[in-house]
Amino acid sequence: MATDKTAATKPRNSKDITHWDIETDVAIIGFGGAGASAAIEAADAGSKVCIFELASASGGSTALSSAEIYMGGNGGTPVQQACGYHDDTQNMVNYLKACFGNQADDEKIGHYCENSVGHYHWLTGLGVPFKLSELKERAIMALTDDCLLFTGNEKAHPFTEHASPVPRGHNLQVEGDNGGPLLMKILTEAVEQRGVDIHYDSRALSLIVNDNGEVEGVIVRIDQQEKCIRARKGVILCAGGFCMNEEMLKKYAPTFDCGLIPIGNSGDTGSGILMGMGVGAGTTNMHECFVSLPYYPPSSLTYGILINDKAQRFINEDCYHGRVGYNALIAQRNSSRIYFITDLEGYGDYEKMSYLGATVAGTGDTIAELEQELALPESSLQHTLETYNRHAASGEDPYFHKSEAWLRPLTPPFVALDCTLGRGTFYPFFTLGGLDTTVDGQVLTPERNIIKGLFAAGRTTAGIPRTASGYASGMSVGDVTYFGRLAGKSAAGN
Amino acid sequence: MATDKTAATKPRNSKDITHWDIETDVAIIGFGGAGASAAIEAADAGSKVCIFELASASGGSTALSSAEIYMGGNGGTPVQQACGYHDDTQNMVNYLKACFGNQADDEKIGHYCENSVGHYHWLTGLGVPFKLSELKERAIMALTDDCLLFTGNEKAHPFTEHASPVPRGHNLQVEGDNGGPLLMKILTEAVEQRGVDIHYDSRALSLIVNDNGEVEGVIVRIDQQEKCIRARKGVILCAGGFCMNEEMLKKYAPTFDCGLIPIGNSGDTGSGILMGMGVGAGTTNMHECFVSLPYYPPSSLTYGILINDKAQRFINEDCYHGRVGYNALIAQRNSSRIYFITDLEGYGDYEKMSYLGATVAGTGDTIAELEQELALPESSLQHTLETYNRHAASGEDPYFHKSEAWLRPLTPPFVALDCTLGRGTFYPFFTLGGLDTTVDGQVLTPERNIIKGLFAAGRTTAGIPRTASGYASGMSVGDVTYFGRLAGKSAAGN
Repeated sequence: MATDKTAATKPRNSKDITHWDIETDVAIIGFGGAGASAAIEAADAGSKVCIFELASASGGSTALSSAEIYMGGNGGTPVQQACGYHDDTQNMVNYLKACFGNQADDEKIGHYCENSVGHYHWLTGLGVPFKLSELKERAIMALTDDCLLFTGNEKAHPFTEHASPVPRGHNLQVEGDNGGPLLMKILTEAVEQRGVDIHYDSRALSLIVNDNGEVEGVIVRIDQQEKCIRARKGVILCAGGFCMNEEMLKKYAPTFDCGLIPIGNSGDTGSGILMGMGVGAGTTNMHECFVSLPYYPPSSLTYGILINDKAQRFINEDCYHGRVGYNALIAQRNSSRIYFITDLEGYGDYEKMSYLGATVAGTGDTIAELEQELALPESSLQHTLETYNRHAASGEDPYFHKSEAWLRPLTPPFVALDCTLGRGTFYPFFTLGGLDTTVDGQVLTPERNIIKGLFAAGRTTAGIPRTASGYASGMSVGDVTYFGRLAGKSAAGN
Repeated sequence: MATDKTAATKPRNSKDITHWDIETDVAIIGFGGAGASAAIEAADAGSKVCIFELASASGGSTALSSAEIYMGGNGGTPVQQACGYHDDTQNMVNYLKACFGNQADDEKIGHYCENSVGHYHWLTGLGVPFKLSELKERAIMALTDDCLLFTGNEKAHPFTEHASPVPRGHNLQVEGDNGGPLLMKILTEAVEQRGVDIHYDSRALSLIVNDNGEVEGVIVRIDQQEKCIRARKGVILCAGGFCMNEEMLKKYAPTFDCGLIPIGNSGDTGSGILMGMGVGAGTTNMHECFVSLPYYPPSSLTYGILINDKAQRFINEDCYHGRVGYNALIAQRNSSRIYFITDLEGYGDYEKMSYLGATVAGTGDTIAELEQELALPESSLQHTLETYNRHAASGEDPYFHKSEAWLRPLTPPFVALDCTLGRGTFYPFFTLGGLDTTVDGQVLTPERNIIKGLFAAGRTTAGIPRTASGYASGMSVGDVTYFGRLAGKSAAGN
């Protein structure tokens, strides 16, 4: 059964290693945001560092992302302050706890909120550019070079009951959706400047442990040969998540094994998690994924309503697209259809601007006509829309508490977009579970003992973001760079 | 960190064992339904068997249950046939796959469906009595001595689209809710008759492994002394689930860590799972639990409607109480209130008969009055009920496909029961995840390698039932006795 792609990777025993091809202090598997940040800190702490990256270049999933970085607390980052926002650390903690509830890692949240302003300064110290400006539109990512934007549910019900809304997404100062490449370019240069020994096209195969179960190195395939890498201080697994491993998805996150589109890099096969499990590491939050229904831009669609096959609304449409995706897909999994209902004004530039891929399922000069075209139960959509419009006209949504800013009556003619999974709509996902780690990146057994010599960061672990329903853009890149740094520091100090 | 109640239990090394207090072929931890079934099969295969039970008597959670047993396939059990039902194996497989979807263990389902008629004969061979009769009412359990009843969602949408409805719950021939004690009495006697060495008040502490990681025995505390038990053929962990371990619940099944009432025995602390994890076992389905909203009896409440804080219905109310509980609690977790709306006829003997504990939240001579009393959005409940009544009058429910048998218009006066979690309503739960095992009960590492000498069954593993949304009464006792037997056989043949 060991060819199973969900099988933990059996380690090698160091007593079977006859010679070391490479000796280093810290060996890092994966050169995305987490691996790069770990390398910089480990090198700055005086360690000799090697990075082994499967691909032919650095980047990982961070380079594919928009690289908004979720930061705040301590009164606010310089950008938050320049844009007139005060961000109290406790307010940020309260927000993140509201986002992830029982699933939150309170210790990681506390550490992150206390230090993310420091993280901002570390990033700018490396040359990461942030403009002291705010993008006020509702967007998935900034396409201008403006910095600060609301990237989650901060202004949406019920989060406003738990924390004051403050924008914490920090977009790099670059035009277009180019934050990820720029961030990785800067981090890669910082790694190179520190004399880190970088090996591309190098596939980590298995960890090397001694008889006490301590990690002493890693086997890496380079130029079609197995190389034995000795890591005197530790191996740091920064090898991404497992959204590209269908079998792991089915085994560990079966709820999300339903035809979603994986977003990540082709190396997101769970190899780091499986290598960790092979030396006895525990895992956490493996059943959870990010999922999204990316229905804005155009932000004007937010004026519309999202309904199920009973024409019931089920979420305040001013939420973050991940929360909407979670509720459309997971909470509504008994529904055979999901539609976005808009009017022409809300439809706006949908065809030009949207990432959604949802096709028009019906149109109507009246709601009754649209209802019939969508084969919804008679009077169902008529009632839902009449009620919504009546409330919207009075500036309130007693059902779902959509904020007044996004309430206005919808007027004929109407358009319905088919957002049903499997009917063309883009539902991206990636995994949010991984190796169980301490705040400083040490990998834990299910006994909660530290595995000596083994560290992990990024989506090889579970970090700040734990569910799509509480996710905000910037939480992943924020988490992987921040906890990547801590893992690098603690490996160097090992 | 090792005092943490979620910590895997560190095993002892057999080379540190100076003498064996007890030597046996098969050591079984836990004397509930799984342990008893394993003991009978292992003894019948010629093995010397010891059972170690934490409590002062056999029983486990099986004795606390109603002990309906979910069986069918192969044309039908003798009871199914006597009651006029034909149950095709593929039909049963289709049903169970529809219940658990991506989470299903197809191999276990196949094995179970092919052999559950054989399991029926094994049980009756031991003296378990089943009357050749059917209980036709909608009930959580049979309080008569009748045998066959529908115990799941077999007759409810959408399951009727996947399989022909056949009742598969087999209640023991005993008056009252006394199936569990009777089943365990019979199984216990069968174990005793086979000369199995039974130790009560005995707490298993940790497994004993050799340098190859093979399980050789178990440390058990008996009379306040640690005893070293050698198990030449294997140890079978039948120690229950982890619903009584709040820390494990928070760590592994955080969605269900919300104030539900654990149902199980006080030994359901996950100790078997943690012992298995301590020797490198993998786990599966740990994030899932059974949860229920036990709103019937009286079955007449099924004529009512269940609504959320927007007065939206969200499930066909003729489903199994576990599916309703899952949808009320997990799928509707953004709802601040859940109400059951009934009329006086449906309310019936609620106060005398119900297990629900829900208090009356409001009454009304009109729906408008009730709506106001419940502080629901204006016209919301009026619309929902008018629509429901109009459809019920015509014998159809185009929204949720509640079956015609449970449709009739509700008439004033109306009553609302408050089914909101945390407001008095009984929401029981237990865990549905555990050690990863083969069909025949061998425990697997995350590498999918077999851990030699280690077996598990019952809720220490994940078996047939994987979610509350697809659960049916009888699936647990069916699963634990069936796979307990297989584990006993394979340990004996080791």
